[in-house]
Amino acid sequence: MSVIDEATREFGRLPGVGPRTATRLVYHLLRSPPEQSKQLARCIVSLIDRVRACEVCGNFSESQKCAVCIDISRDRSVICIVENAFDVRSIERTGQFKGMFHVLGGALSPLDGVGPEQLRVASLLTRIREAKGEIREVILATNPSVEGEATAVYLEALIRPLGPRITRLARGIPVGSDLEYIDGSTLAEAFFGRREM
Amino acid sequence: MSVIDEATREFGRLPGVGPRTATRLVYHLLRSPPEQSKQLARCIVSLIDRVRACEVCGNFSESQKCAVCIDISRDRSVICIVENAFDVRSIERTGQFKGMFHVLGGALSPLDGVGPEQLRVASLLTRIREAKGEIREVILATNPSVEGEATAVYLEALIRPLGPRITRLARGIPVGSDLEYIDGSTLAEAFFGRREM
Repeated sequence: MSVIDEATREFGRLPGVGPRTATRLVYHLLRSPPEQSKQLARCIVSLIDRVRACEVCGNFSESQKCAVCIDISRDRSVICIVENAFDVRSIERTGQFKGMFHVLGGALSPLDGVGPEQLRVASLLTRIREAKGEIREVILATNPSVEGEATAVYLEALIRPLGPRITRLARGIPVGSDLEYIDGSTLAEAFFGRREM
Repeated sequence: MSVIDEATREFGRLPGVGPRTATRLVYHLLRSPPEQSKQLARCIVSLIDRVRACEVCGNFSESQKCAVCIDISRDRSVICIVENAFDVRSIERTGQFKGMFHVLGGALSPLDGVGPEQLRVASLLTRIREAKGEIREVILATNPSVEGEATAVYLEALIRPLGPRITRLARGIPVGSDLEYIDGSTLAEAFFGRREM
């Protein structure tokens, strides 16, 4: 196998990159200044070597605790539970949430062999318990998929006895969308959750 | 700048990869088995270190001469001139062409500072001249863009005195397309080049 084919195969493993795009990327790298292409390779290596899970919340971090967990200005009485570190980034970009996070590392999916032991569930419960009632609210921000829903229901049952208020992100019509293209269950949720003007 | 941001910036330099896709790719690598992510980095480095231009035609190769140039079964009397090595790959995949290639390394574009000296033009002329009349046909397969056309016209003037037949790829309606969506100049070319059934 030529190095071009090998690199194409590796790029093809990335999400959203088909064989055609992979080939394009490889040929692009071959045409770019060698230093720039190697910089990409070096960045990938540093990424793997230097980024790890925050020991408190599981978010990606270059130190033992992530930027959110060491930020003393944040509200430690609210924990937002998400499936992945990418979700932390998405929520942080809104600038609307000032509490803490807990990254599960996925959603329950028995068929794929993902049970509670594969997720950061035990450390979440320990975290809530050790806060001794200081956590007022837990926001379940898992995805609106079958697995995300199942995970939320499962966690609710475990967190309920520990005391905090448990909320879920609002469902409804996405901003900028068109009623015509909204699926039935989202529209039903939007009616169910309608608010006074 | 964090290593995540740095890697995102480097991925964002790739064609067709916006900031959002770049972030997704970086988070995907962080979630993948470390060995797999590092394999991608290693492939990029080998690509840059091991692939070079074929000394005859300019195609990408891991040795002095590329796979096409060393293949003795190919027809050395026809040279297909393309802008980039990617075009060689595209043409090879059709399996229809059994001649040789010459990769210019781009198209003439005075505004971007690309003149004949920046392209493999001199070596092309030497190649045709040194074949001493053994090259029957030169196919100008530059892109159907302003630069590609200008390059073809420029090369035609230089190659004409050397003797070979000079052809250009056929223009017309792409296979599987719909007349409704074809631009006017392509449709005009299709009429101009119509064939007997």
